[in-house]
Amino acid sequence: MDPIDKQILFHLQNQARMSMTELGKCVNLSQPAVTERVKRMEEKGIIEQYRTIISNEKTGKHTTAYMLFRTSDCHAFLDFVQTSPHVIECHRISGEHNYLMKVITESNRSLEEFGNSCDKYGTYSILIVMSTPVEYKNPIFSLDDISSPDLL
Amino acid sequence: MDPIDKQILFHLQNQARMSMTELGKCVNLSQPAVTERVKRMEEKGIIEQYRTIISNEKTGKHTTAYMLFRTSDCHAFLDFVQTSPHVIECHRISGEHNYLMKVITESNRSLEEFGNSCDKYGTYSILIVMSTPVEYKNPIFSLDDISSPDLL
Amino acid sequence: MDPIDKQILFHLQNQARMSMTELGKCVNLSQPAVTERVKRMEEKGIIEQYRTIISNEKTGKHTTAYMLFRTSDCHAFLDFVQTSPHVIECHRISGEHNYLMKVITESNRSLEEFGNSCDKYGTYSILIVMSTPVEYKNPIFSLDDISSPDLL
Amino acid sequence: MDPIDKQILFHLQNQARMSMTELGKCVNLSQPAVTERVKRMEEKGIIEQYRTIISNEKTGKHTTAYMLFRTSDCHAFLDFVQTSPHVIECHRISGEHNYLMKVITESNRSLEEFGNSCDKYGTYSILIVMSTPVEYKNPIFSLDDISSPDLL
Amino acid sequence: MDPIDKQILFHLQNQARMSMTELGKCVNLSQPAVTERVKRMEEKGIIEQYRTIISNEKTGKHTTAYMLFRTSDCHAFLDFVQTSPHVIECHRISGEHNYLMKVITESNRSLEEFGNSCDKYGTYSILIVMSTPVEYKNPIFSLDDISSPDLL
Amino acid sequence: MDPIDKQILFHLQNQARMSMTELGKCVNLSQPAVTERVKRMEEKGIIEQYRTIISNEKTGKHTTAYMLFRTSDCHAFLDFVQTSPHVIECHRISGEHNYLMKVITESNRSLEEFGNSCDKYGTYSILIVMSTPVEYKNPIFSLDDISSPDLL
Amino acid sequence: MDPIDKQILFHLQNQARMSMTELGKCVNLSQPAVTERVKRMEEKGIIEQYRTIISNEKTGKHTTAYMLFRTSDCHAFLDFVQTSPHVIECHRISGEHNYLMKVITESNRSLEEFGNSCDKYGTYSILIVMSTPVEYKNPIFSLDDISSPDLL
Amino acid sequence: MDPIDKQILFHLQNQARMSMTELGKCVNLSQPAVTERVKRMEEKGIIEQYRTIISNEKTGKHTTAYMLFRTSDCHAFLDFVQTSPHVIECHRISGEHNYLMKVITESNRSLEEFGNSCDKYGTYSILIVMSTPVEYKNPIFSLDDISSPDLL
Repeated sequence: MDPIDKQILFHLQNQARMSMTELGKCVNLSQPAVTERVKRMEEKGIIEQYRTIISNEKTGKHTTAYMLFRTSDCHAFLDFVQTSPHVIECHRISGEHNYLMKVITESNRSLEEFGNSCDKYGTYSILIVMSTPVEYKNPIFSLDDISSPDLL
Repeated sequence: MDPIDKQILFHLQNQARMSMTELGKCVNLSQPAVTERVKRMEEKGIIEQYRTIISNEKTGKHTTAYMLFRTSDCHAFLDFVQTSPHVIECHRISGEHNYLMKVITESNRSLEEFGNSCDKYGTYSILIVMSTPVEYKNPIFSLDDISSPDLL
Repeated sequence: MDPIDKQILFHLQNQARMSMTELGKCVNLSQPAVTERVKRMEEKGIIEQYRTIISNEKTGKHTTAYMLFRTSDCHAFLDFVQTSPHVIECHRISGEHNYLMKVITESNRSLEEFGNSCDKYGTYSILIVMSTPVEYKNPIFSLDDISSPDLL
Repeated sequence: MDPIDKQILFHLQNQARMSMTELGKCVNLSQPAVTERVKRMEEKGIIEQYRTIISNEKTGKHTTAYMLFRTSDCHAFLDFVQTSPHVIECHRISGEHNYLMKVITESNRSLEEFGNSCDKYGTYSILIVMSTPVEYKNPIFSLDDISSPDLL
Repeated sequence: MDPIDKQILFHLQNQARMSMTELGKCVNLSQPAVTERVKRMEEKGIIEQYRTIISNEKTGKHTTAYMLFRTSDCHAFLDFVQTSPHVIECHRISGEHNYLMKVITESNRSLEEFGNSCDKYGTYSILIVMSTPVEYKNPIFSLDDISSPDLL
Repeated sequence: MDPIDKQILFHLQNQARMSMTELGKCVNLSQPAVTERVKRMEEKGIIEQYRTIISNEKTGKHTTAYMLFRTSDCHAFLDFVQTSPHVIECHRISGEHNYLMKVITESNRSLEEFGNSCDKYGTYSILIVMSTPVEYKNPIFSLDDISSPDLL
Repeated sequence: MDPIDKQILFHLQNQARMSMTELGKCVNLSQPAVTERVKRMEEKGIIEQYRTIISNEKTGKHTTAYMLFRTSDCHAFLDFVQTSPHVIECHRISGEHNYLMKVITESNRSLEEFGNSCDKYGTYSILIVMSTPVEYKNPIFSLDDISSPDLL
Repeated sequence: MDPIDKQILFHLQNQARMSMTELGKCVNLSQPAVTERVKRMEEKGIIEQYRTIISNEKTGKHTTAYMLFRTSDCHAFLDFVQTSPHVIECHRISGEHNYLMKVITESNRSLEEFGNSCDKYGTYSILIVMSTPVEYKNPIFSLDDISSPDLL
């Protein structure tokens, strides 16, 4: 991954539907050259997915929460987590809990019901999200990080 | 948002670069009709962004952690959070801490340095991610949710 | 709900037995007009109840406590809570416990017995009330909140 | 306070606007006799207040929370609590926190702002109410408690 | 209990074997008069016991600890506590634990064994005493508290 | 300390005013012999004090509590503890707090005032005593512990 | 153990393979004299072991963690601990947990698997080591501690 | 590092003073061959140190404790830690504390004094070691791990 690849990612990270022609202009490359580079980054697993971000608010999901979970039956718990439409992220963590889940529900009331459905897997602490100052920050934070500007 | 819109989102959510022609075939609509619908969902804010997911591992960021933070100077803290390249998410939460941050660094060692740089803003608990059973689950969980199949 | 309704509630909130004639004088309305407005607010559910507050001290209940409760059997727990004369409030909450109860007993000694009777439903933390700086604050905090004074 | 007084309170506790004539019928007493008894209970402080309960939901206050608070400057904290329209109850408690407050705000977002305004008084834990299985239980729980039915 | 009784307790509290003659001199009373007063305070339960304090160190008990205990089977736990020679005090307390015990053992090693014998009754936290700045303070703190010195 | 000394302590531990003649009878020794042994145990520090236990309830002290304290200024804190009439025991302990105090006050209300007076020394958790299943257990638990009965 | 023994330990503590001749020079003794002294310290148990410290990093063990453990079945737990190759230290401790273990695994991922294998013995909190400012400090901290230099 | 190297470490790990001749016999190699291999492992950093383990008990250090520490001034804290003879290990950890120290003192009393000297650097929790079921486990756990026995 050289500086040009990094520039490509910088432009693509929050505009995943940008055309190859347009992207080529941004990085001073021909359309076939930039297409080739993007394809190689897909193959290497540098680019993992092109994701469409859908508004939770607009699709009727008004409550977001994190749950710190302690279970002593990881297999049953993970089966539950994989199949529940409310759990959208799940991480194994250090500390006194063993999992951190991100949960999205229609309302505080349905969050309570989700909590009830978790009771058989262990104990947990619910952290309700009141606002989100940083929803997501682009991983290629700025163009200043990119060395060798003469390559451009 | 009718069942066809929901179908469109179902196909688009993890293939954001799909062409309109292809997407039209998936939902039995002409290319102009499906383009029109997608455009309307962008304008209404139902579609928030097309995001390219870049591998942390492949770009040299080997440590992911969550930090539960208690600060009594929210403004200074949020300024720091907005400008730090290591913080990629930040949520205001209920409970004894007031913020939950997602942090990505090169190694455990650089996570420690990031921790040191946080000391002046308050106290915190670091939860290191050991694995991620669910990295992200698509919000439109299955086509079974979608009513009125005869519309198709 | 217009400013006059708000004024009516302001006067009624801590003098629920005030006569309609008296109330009418407070808000510059005739007795039938004010009666009509109160009736409408009852029907709409704005006014939920007229409650007589009885002294705990004077009726031999000397100990007030809050209990943070974690149960994994919500149904059995709620049945218990509904029928126990000692529990006067119960809220489902976020955090590491799932319920917060307000409990009133004759003495610290009978609080202990109540605690024992809870043991089979889960674990809890007892917070004994030592004093109550604010027992209840009227929801319509001041007349300054009310706009359009010319309506009066 | 004899069994008849207790019966009076039983009927009055959740119907504070009941007329004396009606109340007299409930307890087999003349209107002047029942009026006399009620007046005596008011003078003795057994009856503390007649309160009109106003719906939080209907008056635009959608978020209820409890806050466990630790302050080391009780005077400044209590001044704040007395004058804030958002704090409707405040109790001094045993345990690691010194106060428990009940707080009502328009939304989770305004609860966050209230939290920020508390930062200068100490540290706290926010418990958001997701539902309220028991909002209030009448202190005179049932007529079975009342001895000497022959008095009636 | 008048000021003279209080003076008697002041002298007796840490010299329980003082003779009545000597005690009489301290408070300006005859031996029969002071004997009568002491006897009356014993009968009323003001004086509960005359206790000989035996050195733990000198009798081979080198480790003192407090244990915060949470049990959900109070009866079995209290039976254990009453019969164990290591538990010398046990209090029912508010907070997240339900009992606080004072425990004395020969060494840290035998404290560990005592801990093991407790495992079947619940969970606990052991607080080892490293020193005791105040072992016991006399309840009648000073003679200044006693009013009416002219009575003497 | 031989078995006879142990027997002497067994009898004396909760009857500190027993006469030497009486005590001699209990252990089959002459009055001068038993006096000599007691004196020797006093000199060696085996017997530390003869204490008169005065009823808290009867002397108007209705609230007992333990306080777990964390201070970072041990000297100021210990000065306060030594001179406060409310603190009757204070132990330096392991764990997250550094001191455990036993506190006795007239009421829950005066306990609150005591808590306020502690605020400047650090943070604390108040554990109110609801009952005391074991107030004090004699250190010489039973005569069965004493070996060599033939010595008697 | 005299000052010369202490000097011997000072030199030997981090150079366990030093020859007796060399060691003798360091402390101004003949080889047989120093050998005799070392032998005597081995016999008395002052010297417990000569240990070869092997690099974890170089032998493929990249993750070090401490685990605070609460078990109520000490025997089963200790059997597990003794036979697990991942646990390299285990201490019985005061506080709310009963054991502290030091654990070494190949990666965070294998630490997670180790955690899973512990689930049946109790609950635990994992503390991942991010760096080690002091890996080991020699017990004989400096030669200044050693009195009587004229003996040398 | 081949199986023979691993065998060498297995024999050397808890007998660091073993002669090369003896070690050669254990692994079927000549003295010069085994010396060469050991030297290479020292140069590569696989062997970090030959350490003489000195008994804490025999050198008058009767109390071992772990301290979980939270500081917000890491530099001052680490200076203190490096120079204190009582701290023999110090690790930077995840979780709510930032350091875990191993501390050795003469007695519980001197541990308390050490605690006092730490007060200016932050807050801490002291965990006193009551016993050590596993003091140290050899990193090369068994010969079964070693593949290719035919090499021997």
